[in-house]
Amino acid sequence: MSVWVRDPAFARDQPFGPQTLPYGVVDAGDGPRVAVRLGDHALVLTSVAHSLGDLATLVSASSLDPLLAATRADWSALRARLVSLVSPGSTAPAGAQLVPLSDVRMSLPFTVGDYVDFYSSRYHAENVGRIMRPDSDPLLPNWTHLPVGYHGRSGTVVVSGTPVERPHGQRKGSPVPKFGPSGRLDIEAEVGFVCGGPVARRVPTRSAAEHIFGVVLLNDWSARDIQGWEYQPLGPFLGKSFATSISAWVTPLDALATARIAVPDVGHPRLPYLAEDAPWGLDLRLAIEWNGTVVSRPQFAHMSYSCAQQLAHMTVNGATVRPGDLFASGTVSGPERTQRGCFLELSWGGREEIALSDGETRTFLEDGDEVVIRATAPGEDGSVVGIAPVAGTVLPAVDL
Amino acid sequence: MSVWVRDPAFARDQPFGPQTLPYGVVDAGDGPRVAVRLGDHALVLTSVAHSLGDLATLVSASSLDPLLAATRADWSALRARLVSLVSPGSTAPAGAQLVPLSDVRMSLPFTVGDYVDFYSSRYHAENVGRIMRPDSDPLLPNWTHLPVGYHGRSGTVVVSGTPVERPHGQRKGSPVPKFGPSGRLDIEAEVGFVCGGPVARRVPTRSAAEHIFGVVLLNDWSARDIQGWEYQPLGPFLGKSFATSISAWVTPLDALATARIAVPDVGHPRLPYLAEDAPWGLDLRLAIEWNGTVVSRPQFAHMSYSCAQQLAHMTVNGATVRPGDLFASGTVSGPERTQRGCFLELSWGGREEIALSDGETRTFLEDGDEVVIRATAPGEDGSVVGIAPVAGTVLPAVDL
Repeated sequence: MSVWVRDPAFARDQPFGPQTLPYGVVDAGDGPRVAVRLGDHALVLTSVAHSLGDLATLVSASSLDPLLAATRADWSALRARLVSLVSPGSTAPAGAQLVPLSDVRMSLPFTVGDYVDFYSSRYHAENVGRIMRPDSDPLLPNWTHLPVGYHGRSGTVVVSGTPVERPHGQRKGSPVPKFGPSGRLDIEAEVGFVCGGPVARRVPTRSAAEHIFGVVLLNDWSARDIQGWEYQPLGPFLGKSFATSISAWVTPLDALATARIAVPDVGHPRLPYLAEDAPWGLDLRLAIEWNGTVVSRPQFAHMSYSCAQQLAHMTVNGATVRPGDLFASGTVSGPERTQRGCFLELSWGGREEIALSDGETRTFLEDGDEVVIRATAPGEDGSVVGIAPVAGTVLPAVDL
Repeated sequence: MSVWVRDPAFARDQPFGPQTLPYGVVDAGDGPRVAVRLGDHALVLTSVAHSLGDLATLVSASSLDPLLAATRADWSALRARLVSLVSPGSTAPAGAQLVPLSDVRMSLPFTVGDYVDFYSSRYHAENVGRIMRPDSDPLLPNWTHLPVGYHGRSGTVVVSGTPVERPHGQRKGSPVPKFGPSGRLDIEAEVGFVCGGPVARRVPTRSAAEHIFGVVLLNDWSARDIQGWEYQPLGPFLGKSFATSISAWVTPLDALATARIAVPDVGHPRLPYLAEDAPWGLDLRLAIEWNGTVVSRPQFAHMSYSCAQQLAHMTVNGATVRPGDLFASGTVSGPERTQRGCFLELSWGGREEIALSDGETRTFLEDGDEVVIRATAPGEDGSVVGIAPVAGTVLPAVDL
């Protein structure tokens, strides 16, 4: 008991204290089990099942799937129970299993249904427009009226830490296209929203919290040369589908209540189905580390469409949203050079070198490079809420 | 026994005789069960489990999922067993349950993983280019080098017969976009390929049969006004994601051996990863019925990329393919006016009326319209192999 209450994991002055409590799936050698993160430990929830009452069934599987298929009321009740278990002065429940993160293997926390990727940073869209289509208006006419997005490949969403192999593909060449390993491998720093609750159609912005369970960081790995050759007229395909990494821990929406802010103006009123009663923008501060050097600090506050607006748009045509569906914000880029969310922008299309602290320079990713995206949000009473990092290392292309 | 052998369902002179034997999931009031179609009857496979040996476990679930997760060897062995059960002179296995199709409800036969939609008819791509981008080259430079495609929404794939509600969405307007029910609701007649076998990466064209279980017809319902406004630069999204219909019965690839033909030349050699040892084009003849009038007879032989080339392309970047993944050919259009696979082309962008046999005319779909897509293929010994139809009726938009 004394270990339980003295554990530094329980302190609110670190980002994964009891104010955060993200859910993940850990394997400490006895199979995958649902846990919440506390500092650098995982609290295995089957070990405290007797303290969770009926709600224990939601976290007794080998993934978050049953929890995602529950309701907002269940999610809030479970979180309240867990917060009370780990609050200062609490008593360790008999048998509570707190495992160091260094002793567990994390797995993809839920079965991904549909994966949608938006494009909701005006700065990113404008920068990409200037780089890719220098002779035309950087922002296309639809951009300020709807959250532009497309479907990605759910089968290649992987958990943080999974190495990413450099993809092969076609790129532009004359007289015929070239085929081989991508020479312009990039990242996109994004925030992903994990859907849950009953299957639904036409989710209005005011009902977002009934259908969004929580938040992850997401790295939308992108092969720019493959993408540039293939993307017209039907959008990105193989330039993105080889891998998409997400945090191993899903931060519940409830942990981000203090971080909610209004989204920026787009210059005209929103269409009624995209208007918000309450703000759903989020004050998340990201950092992108390239081989240990922080090369950018994007702010999610700059995104022009909120998760509630994206979900309302995605379902306004009658499309269903299911537990396990995942949608991402689009690359988080701000107005400053040091706030750009991908290397295409940071290197301005590969033309400007980015300096790393070890003296090396980069434009796009080299084999062996590691990228880690981190984020925090303001929590209650001055605390900091962590969003678990998403990390990945580039493996060389295989020989074909 | 005498009923069994005399049943006209067993005759090879109709498209769903023993030469075809597509798999589906039927519910005759006692829950969903796997069946094969024989004429206008469903043979429930649990009722003949004792004749299937170990293979019975593959078809004892409430969907085709376990069958898809098996291997080509299992698929061929099961089919051989079923063919012998229903061949002329065969004895009805004790308890065999043959249910009229009019007495069963069909469900979506498998859990759809990722859904990809290609764009592999040159005639369709050129026609759409001429209609949508009249001032530029109708075929973009990448088209003859790779099968252009994109991911669609797997959660809104529905079984044939499911009504399709007219979607709401944004369309172009001045000074601001309009919002409301689509006024240009269309179909796209396509062929869908259902993946199975072990999870795989980089599937060469010669291994296509290990990872493609069978074939369905697919209607890629499309709201052209929504699509036209949203699709740049990331491709179709809400203009397609409201519904995609597939046949209730999956025709096994083994039933189409006689239908295999070479794909048309694209004007230059294929890149090595897209070359084929054996031809994987398919001689499928489609017919599109609009309220009972056949308005088009597209031929799949005109498609410039085969299913093997599409699968090789889709996985050449290292992306995995899983059992239940579904990919579609793209709209099947031929060089003739009467071979166009969507109403956008048949009406040339809404400018030319299409006459139905009841005296009515159409450009795009009206509420209450029904569309049925049918297809056949040449089978062994002059028989005809049916691909089960995909049908849907348009429901009015809901009031928002």
